[in-house]
This record gives sequence, structure tokens and C-alpha cells, in this order.
Amino acid sequence: MSHPIIEFAKTPSEHHVQELFEQAKEVQARAYAPYSHFLVGAAILTPSGNIYVGCNVENAAYPVGNCAEASAIAAMIAGGEKEIFALATICDSSDIGTCCGGCRQRVREFAKSDTAIYACGPDGVRAIFTMDQLLPTSFGPDNLVGFVS
Amino acid sequence: MSHPIIEFAKTPSEHHVQELFEQAKEVQARAYAPYSHFLVGAAILTPSGNIYVGCNVENAAYPVGNCAEASAIAAMIAGGEKEIFALATICDSSDIGTCCGGCRQRVREFAKSDTAIYACGPDGVRAIFTMDQLLPTSFGPDNLVGFVS
Amino acid sequence: MSHPIIEFAKTPSEHHVQELFEQAKEVQARAYAPYSHFLVGAAILTPSGNIYVGCNVENAAYPVGNCAEASAIAAMIAGGEKEIFALATICDSSDIGTCCGGCRQRVREFAKSDTAIYACGPDGVRAIFTMDQLLPTSFGPDNLVGFVS
Amino acid sequence: MSHPIIEFAKTPSEHHVQELFEQAKEVQARAYAPYSHFLVGAAILTPSGNIYVGCNVENAAYPVGNCAEASAIAAMIAGGEKEIFALATICDSSDIGTCCGGCRQRVREFAKSDTAIYACGPDGVRAIFTMDQLLPTSFGPDNLVGFVS
Repeated sequence: MSHPIIEFAKTPSEHHVQELFEQAKEVQARAYAPYSHFLVGAAILTPSGNIYVGCNVENAAYPVGNCAEASAIAAMIAGGEKEIFALATICDSSDIGTCCGGCRQRVREFAKSDTAIYACGPDGVRAIFTMDQLLPTSFGPDNLVGFVS
Repeated sequence: MSHPIIEFAKTPSEHHVQELFEQAKEVQARAYAPYSHFLVGAAILTPSGNIYVGCNVENAAYPVGNCAEASAIAAMIAGGEKEIFALATICDSSDIGTCCGGCRQRVREFAKSDTAIYACGPDGVRAIFTMDQLLPTSFGPDNLVGFVS
Repeated sequence: MSHPIIEFAKTPSEHHVQELFEQAKEVQARAYAPYSHFLVGAAILTPSGNIYVGCNVENAAYPVGNCAEASAIAAMIAGGEKEIFALATICDSSDIGTCCGGCRQRVREFAKSDTAIYACGPDGVRAIFTMDQLLPTSFGPDNLVGFVS
Repeated sequence: MSHPIIEFAKTPSEHHVQELFEQAKEVQARAYAPYSHFLVGAAILTPSGNIYVGCNVENAAYPVGNCAEASAIAAMIAGGEKEIFALATICDSSDIGTCCGGCRQRVREFAKSDTAIYACGPDGVRAIFTMDQLLPTSFGPDNLVGFVS
């Protein structure tokens, strides 16, 4: 899953987007979603060219479940990286399925305002957003300056 | 806390906004935030004219804490109502402090796209948003149609 | 909902347990659980004799939902109190339904090791636990000493 | 990270416990915990002999953070496995640091009542628990039978 370090343009190459989609789709099939039956996959591309994946992990106690994006971010952090260059999510809803608000917040911690987020369906990318489009005027680490040390 | 049922215009009256601000500020002072020291208050106005409040409730295990908006929504649901007409949040950050993404999602479950959300600081309203401005192209119940029954 | 301040024995009186059960059952009926259809109510008795209630509040994005105990705790904190003397939860599962682990942690932040927790079903109390029985050798604020300031 | 499939006794071998400890410690160092400064690592051994790791991932909005155990479980599910044979967690608190209640619930979804859970500190295992010892009389999937389909 490792690639030579490359200079990215502001958005990932078509090749990388295709790889994000495919890896998101592959991990989506392994989602644990016995309660909602709604399988979600996510794949993160980092500036180093690595891809980290995750799927949703539900729980009988719904609020302690994990979204796919949270799982992919956890894989990225465990892999020693802290920056999201691009993200693809995939689900099977008939309309576009975007990240939930909780995940927009999770992604925002490690993304820039123009980080590209691809909302995919079974056949490919359905919509492209920037981080700032999905979570405008966001709450973030800056709000805690002077409070948390 | 109960008022006669009234016809709202699309946005709450100045009187109601002032009341939301004051009640949010009052409950903010009771927030339990020994870990972040970041106190947040929230107040919800429902179409019936009732106001429900909540503050953040932190926990030594950070992810099981509750945001102020979640607390206010819980009060509304316990009170037998399921629609947010307007919401005010208050925090003490130097810049505007908006709802985190998780709370935008929580509010979205009970709000409309044009529901007014007031971001307040100690001295009053700092910014006004609609639900759709804070969580555009949102994930929601419609995405689960055909999956969850 | 306010009572004269009284000296509690180590466990609440039968009268208080009955009141906890009834208030938990009443708020359970107002739970918002369109995804699991599993309605939960919770009622907290504080040392001052006040009772605070809450029910579960689900969300299309499952992990941002609120458990009933979290909702009741939020009401207690918003009410200006920080100690749980006793807690009753109610659900309709055929077997005993106890607090999920997340809620055991939430309760633990405001409880003592011998705080009484009543697991109720539609007809009344099914089992009684102490906090320490439900969350033995718990993680808690003490673990963060020296890390968080 | 893959081993030949072996017959486990009820508890993992000393070799496996040592490996769990070392991998948990290694990933702990990569935790993202700028708010609590409390780094946690987790390593899961599955019946196939694979080990999956994770660390905590905090967020400026505390409740959307991820615990280390949640991260390790997410890695396991993404890896196509659904059973926890043994789990080790590591943190740097002066006393024993056990899984928080939320994580006990997360682990319980994929564990058995006698699954071994090792609470480690910097120098090694400090305490051993079974799943049932950490989350007795647990809430779980059985409670939802007849409600969720």
C-alpha cells in the first residue's frame, strides 16, 4: 500500500481517485452493520501516497459504534501519519451519501479547508466536496486555545 | 418555561432570541467540563414556544461525554417534543464557536434546512446560520430508506 | 420534582425506588428510537431528593445518538447537581436489560462504588446492582491525574 | 503480522501475550492525544493468530474521538475478522488503567465471556481480566432480539 513520495497537485490524480474508490469499496464489503444493514467504506490518501481504509463497526449499544471514516482515520494514525490529503467514502443509498456530521468533524481535525472528499456509490464517484464545503465555519482546535493546555 | 402557542414567522422574534441567549448562558455556567475547561450552553426553542436547555457533560473517557446541544435535544425529547424551531449555543472562545459536526448532525435529525442557529459569545449573538449552511448536503434518515426497517 | 432534603440510608427508600421506576417508565414512552425501536428510559435520584429523567435519542448516524442514561445525566447537570444517589433504567427486552458499558462509564463519573442501579422492565425492578458490580476496576478521573490539567 | 493457524488453549501463550504487549506499546507511541496527553494503545489477537492494533484518536470536539480499543477493533473488522481472542491495552497511568466502559461494550460485541483482557503499563502486564469480569451482566445483541430486524 506504499508509494513513492510524490508532489501532489491540489487534488489527487485520477489514478489515485480510482484507487481510493476501489479500496473503499473493498473494505465496505467487510463492514459490520447487523443493525442498520447500511455498509460504509472509507479510504484516505495521505501526502506520502499511502492509503488507509476503514468500514463501519456497529454495536448493540448504537452510540458506541464506529463510522467508516473514524475507522480509516484510526488506521492512518496507527500508521504514523496525521494528514488527510483526500478521502473517499462509499455507501449504497440511492442518493448521494455524504459523511455524517460527526465524521466531518473527525476528518476536519486532520484535513485542510480544501481537502477533497469523494462521495461514492457502487459505480463510482457521485459527488466531490472540499472539507470546507461539508463543514463550513467549523469548530476546531483553535476554539480551545486558552482553555486546554 | 411554557408559553402560549404562537405563530412564528420563519425566524424567532427578537424577544425569543434574547431568551434563548439568556437561558443558554445560564445553563452554560453549570457545564461539567473539568477536562477541557470549555463550558458550552445550548437552548432550543420549539414550535410550541417551549425552551429546552443543556450544557456539556465531559467524562474521563472523553468519547462518552455529551455536547451541550445533545443535552438540550435530550431535554426536548424527554419533554415530548421533536422539532427544533431555533437553537442558540454559547461558548467563551475568542472567535465564533459553532456547533461541532457531531452536533450539527444531532440537530439536523430534528430541524429543517432553514432552522435558525445562533452562535453566541458572552455578550450575545455573534453569528446566525441556517441548518443547511452548517451541514450542507447532509447525511440523514433518507439515506437509510430501504436498509433500516 | 423537588422534595425536602432528607437523610438517605445507603439505599433509597421503597417510595423513592417506586418513583424512580414510574418516572423512568413515563419518559421511556417519549424515547426517539425509530431505528432500533428499542425504547429506554432512565431516572436519577440525587442526594437532594430531586429526580432527573431522560430517554434514548437515536440518530440516522447511529454513533451520535444518546443513551437514556446520558440524557438523564445531562438533565441532572443542567439542573445544577453532580451526584447520582440512585439510578433506574427501564427497557422492554425479555431478559434483564442493564446499562451499556458506555453508560456505566457515564454514570461512574458521578456515582460512588455503592450507588444503587435498578434495572427495570415494564412491570418493575428486575435486578439491583451497585455501580462497582456493573463497572468493576473502572477507568476514571484518577487515571488522568498528572496528564490533564 | 500473520501466523500459522494454531489451536489456542483458553488463554493465549506467553509468547502471544508478549507480542500483544509489544505491539500495543508500539502503537501507543503514535496516539493522537493533544488534549488529554494520555496515550493509549491496544492490540487484539484473533483466533487465526493475527494481531490488529490501534491507538486513541482525540478530537477538539471530545465526544467524537476514538478510543484505542475502538481503533483496534476497526482494524480487525477491516481485516475481515470478527472475533477477539485476547486483547491488551496499555497506558501510562500510575495505577492500573482498564478499558473504559464504552470500550468494554465495544469489545463485548466481538468477544466471549472468558476472553482474556490484559491491562498493561509501560513495563508489562499489570492485571488480567476476563470479559465477563469487566462487563458483568452485560447489555448486548440479545437484548435487541424482537426489536431490530
